[in-house]
Amino acid sequence: MVPKKTKRIPRRVTPQPKLNKNDKLRIIPLGGLEEVGRNMIIFEYKQDIIIVDMGLQFPEEDMPGIDYIIPNISYLKGKEKLIKGVIITHGHYDHIGAIPHLIPRLGRPPVFGTPLTLGIIAKRQEDYKNGGKLDLQSVDSESKLRLGVFELEFFGVSHNIPGSLGVIINTPVGKIVHTGDFKLDLHPSGDTPTDLAKIAKLSDQNVLAMLSDSTNAPQPGHQFSEQEIMGNLEDIFRVTEGRLIIGTFASLLGRIQQIVELAEKYGRHIILDGYSMKTNVEIAQQLGYMKIKSNTLISYESMKKLPSNKLVILCTGAQGEGRAVLMRLANREHKKTRITKGDTVVFSSSVVPGNERSVQRLIDTLYREGAEVINYKMMDIHSGGHARQEDLKLMLKLINPQYLIPIEGNHSFLKIHAKIAIEIGFDPKNIFIADNGQIIEFSKQGGRLTSKKVPSEYVMVDGLGVGDVSSVVLRDRKQLAEDGMVVVIATIEGKTGRLIGRPDIISRGFVYMKSSQQLIDQTRNKVKDILKDREPKSSLNETYIKNKLRDDLGKFLFQKTERRPMIMPVIIEV
Amino acid sequence: MVPKKTKRIPRRVTPQPKLNKNDKLRIIPLGGLEEVGRNMIIFEYKQDIIIVDMGLQFPEEDMPGIDYIIPNISYLKGKEKLIKGVIITHGHYDHIGAIPHLIPRLGRPPVFGTPLTLGIIAKRQEDYKNGGKLDLQSVDSESKLRLGVFELEFFGVSHNIPGSLGVIINTPVGKIVHTGDFKLDLHPSGDTPTDLAKIAKLSDQNVLAMLSDSTNAPQPGHQFSEQEIMGNLEDIFRVTEGRLIIGTFASLLGRIQQIVELAEKYGRHIILDGYSMKTNVEIAQQLGYMKIKSNTLISYESMKKLPSNKLVILCTGAQGEGRAVLMRLANREHKKTRITKGDTVVFSSSVVPGNERSVQRLIDTLYREGAEVINYKMMDIHSGGHARQEDLKLMLKLINPQYLIPIEGNHSFLKIHAKIAIEIGFDPKNIFIADNGQIIEFSKQGGRLTSKKVPSEYVMVDGLGVGDVSSVVLRDRKQLAEDGMVVVIATIEGKTGRLIGRPDIISRGFVYMKSSQQLIDQTRNKVKDILKDREPKSSLNETYIKNKLRDDLGKFLFQKTERRPMIMPVIIEV
Repeated sequence: MVPKKTKRIPRRVTPQPKLNKNDKLRIIPLGGLEEVGRNMIIFEYKQDIIIVDMGLQFPEEDMPGIDYIIPNISYLKGKEKLIKGVIITHGHYDHIGAIPHLIPRLGRPPVFGTPLTLGIIAKRQEDYKNGGKLDLQSVDSESKLRLGVFELEFFGVSHNIPGSLGVIINTPVGKIVHTGDFKLDLHPSGDTPTDLAKIAKLSDQNVLAMLSDSTNAPQPGHQFSEQEIMGNLEDIFRVTEGRLIIGTFASLLGRIQQIVELAEKYGRHIILDGYSMKTNVEIAQQLGYMKIKSNTLISYESMKKLPSNKLVILCTGAQGEGRAVLMRLANREHKKTRITKGDTVVFSSSVVPGNERSVQRLIDTLYREGAEVINYKMMDIHSGGHARQEDLKLMLKLINPQYLIPIEGNHSFLKIHAKIAIEIGFDPKNIFIADNGQIIEFSKQGGRLTSKKVPSEYVMVDGLGVGDVSSVVLRDRKQLAEDGMVVVIATIEGKTGRLIGRPDIISRGFVYMKSSQQLIDQTRNKVKDILKDREPKSSLNETYIKNKLRDDLGKFLFQKTERRPMIMPVIIEV
Repeated sequence: MVPKKTKRIPRRVTPQPKLNKNDKLRIIPLGGLEEVGRNMIIFEYKQDIIIVDMGLQFPEEDMPGIDYIIPNISYLKGKEKLIKGVIITHGHYDHIGAIPHLIPRLGRPPVFGTPLTLGIIAKRQEDYKNGGKLDLQSVDSESKLRLGVFELEFFGVSHNIPGSLGVIINTPVGKIVHTGDFKLDLHPSGDTPTDLAKIAKLSDQNVLAMLSDSTNAPQPGHQFSEQEIMGNLEDIFRVTEGRLIIGTFASLLGRIQQIVELAEKYGRHIILDGYSMKTNVEIAQQLGYMKIKSNTLISYESMKKLPSNKLVILCTGAQGEGRAVLMRLANREHKKTRITKGDTVVFSSSVVPGNERSVQRLIDTLYREGAEVINYKMMDIHSGGHARQEDLKLMLKLINPQYLIPIEGNHSFLKIHAKIAIEIGFDPKNIFIADNGQIIEFSKQGGRLTSKKVPSEYVMVDGLGVGDVSSVVLRDRKQLAEDGMVVVIATIEGKTGRLIGRPDIISRGFVYMKSSQQLIDQTRNKVKDILKDREPKSSLNETYIKNKLRDDLGKFLFQKTERRPMIMPVIIEV
């Protein structure tokens, strides 16, 4: 499934063109500069394009029904043949999530990443029946790669998933560094530490521009080390007497590795629970990223033979997701076990904004079932995988670029990142805060944030539909959610325009019809009145009647209920 | 509008009955014990009932279209005449918000509170045309009140709105203390400090039970003092050179008072912006709770004559609310001014869970407009109004009750409150963690958490409807929000069951109809097929046909789109 490591892949060589001083490198971020998510950046030089990352963004709360958002690739239409490769910095969904949708539409360029990154990509591809095969090419921090005019090198970074890379892109106009998601953790867990020696060597190599992770730019100080987290987690292992149930992200492989080590140290066995958790661990183990003793992982069946203080259930659902393991445990819907008094449940990941209330409900239910709950508010057992302000300064000093392009974060994060750089003496003129789609140009004369923009509007994925949910559809969903809908069906004699029989009223999400008979009757009468009102001699103007029904009934129902259901008149002409 | 203060109101005296050792005091929390919000507790002794607080709860994210939730008062039906009074501890919506809906249904008992609390209640009542008049009776921390068998005293508490009270209820079976929302702030702003001397005297008065605020029970340590906040805010006033725009809750009158004082100290004038902000300040000023120099408050018109470093705009919208002042400023939709470079926007209230993403979007827009933004993550300029763990312990020691009943918070908060009490030696048997509706009984023999429950289900307010939005309606709204709906209209000849003409398909929130003609046509054909399939000789069974259309079309559309719109078949028989 996962391709073998290959080093030094001198492939797809295009003859090195003569450098014209007007030739420009264009850097075009298609996503990730106005949000956390859907990271994707184009590097284009004449007839060569490479892409770094191809991620998804989780939907905002005003996008009901949307699965996720992917980058808009309109700009690449017609340029598919120029795309020499896609580099994926690491295996998180905000960096890989758009691959199944976009790679087939981009002429299936090869995808480069570390074996773990590729393993996760390959596994996910299985969920997309029509996705086809991917051309996955393995690299590591020692690899060198030529893709068209671009010569690529890599450096390891610690994040919170092993196999994370930063990318050095040697272009005809200069050296560009893309940090990927990183933190500076001298004691990472599972991860390789950020390769400071290699990075520091860049400082005198005239790096033209650095694109640097801004996810945690609003946070002052240094990011916690995973070793500190390990200490906090170890405290829990040391004092807990009953069963330990630890919820975290399936993608936090570093954290999972820590928990495995602690379980082994404290003589506990682990039941892995949750499909994504299991497959990620399996891939990481297969590829040698994760070390687990042979008897550490057990099944629910073996659990019964062991005392509770020898057990850890390591599972998904720490964000309060409805169908994930923790919720099923809390709600007694889990087939293999249930929460009992004496269990300690640990939430070992920070809460994604928007999930706070679901997590709180989950915690309440766990308490009700008799568990002790340790969550991040009580003890810092979560750690971001991203550099904070002091780390960002250090990275900037080490790489010492001429230009800084803050990436990966909301607009305000980029601004704050810039502010930090200015604080340590970076020239404000050489910081480019771009929007999604905004073209940045570099030539031998220097860099420029142009005012040109390529399309970067949301492309929403909903079921099998990609980009087919328009703002109209979303607006309707929101209106339907607020106050429901009323369908009015009137049968009318075509010749006379006379109403036949009683109008039918159907509503959903508006009022409970069974207990609102009076309102329904009044509405029916109102429809009759509206239809009677018509000029008797005018012929049937369906559009006019429908609009009138919509307006007049809307007012009538608002006056009765102060709600604004969507009104859908249906005129049947017989 | 606001009634005058009255002290010692010996009213509604019922003859003191002889105490029977089997007579019981029942404490019934109707809300606030499984959530933060809709606080309302019944105290019932034989023929006398008093109620403390009557609040609303803001809806959860899975309740689209709901305005808010109020307590369920089924238990009080038929007991209206026994209700001797309603005590409101302070003027926040989670304590007063259900008054307009419930007071008219409870025989309009008198409502007691401090003048500020009553002022806010009276002002809000104006929004409810059919709410009628309230019987508002003013009390303060020195008042004594007899309501039926209950003798009431009060003590001042600091929270984050002036005029907050705790209540001492002398009952035939013993003394009950209800803390209200409180923190122990020795340097409050605007507020009176929590009356520790009066509280401490309770310790040797054999308090039977204490009902104590658990809102911040999960937070270790002591709550910040408003004085610390003042220091942080003052730092901002000291260094800011341009215009200051400060967003906060209109109900955080203590914070507003601080900002007024700092503005006056630093020679800035204040423009108050936001309806609720203005009316709250007006009420507080009128009643002497807030001191503002005569030339401090100015209008937008005077703003133009002053340099920006002499200005503060103090406004609502720090939660990212769509139509509030801050959002209108950010979106250039404000009629009087707009954000300009040099403005500093301060978010001076913590973000209510669920609002994080709206707040982030607002911050991004403000940065984009050129403002500097200081939000709570960067500097602690928000402070909860609630006791944290060490404060709770101190309160418990000072009041020294026989029983502890944690109130005001999610189930887990109550459990944590209990755990803290046990840590300092409180007898676990004497802590009652009740659910909403669960009856707690006290007699001369002691207290008991019974297993009896009165109704406490959500009563949802949506427009003019109170309690008419059922779970069915909500479920429909959620389904409509996810994937929209499809109405299928088929005209059928009654006698033959033959389809007449083409079936009509209307959809909203499912796919964009204009660009999905093919799918619509396929759906139409599918409908024809389904209708043809019927046994030719069977008579028209509308229910059967509708169910079949719903099921078969559902499967068909899911297969085509992986979406599950609500399908509504309409059969017109002619």
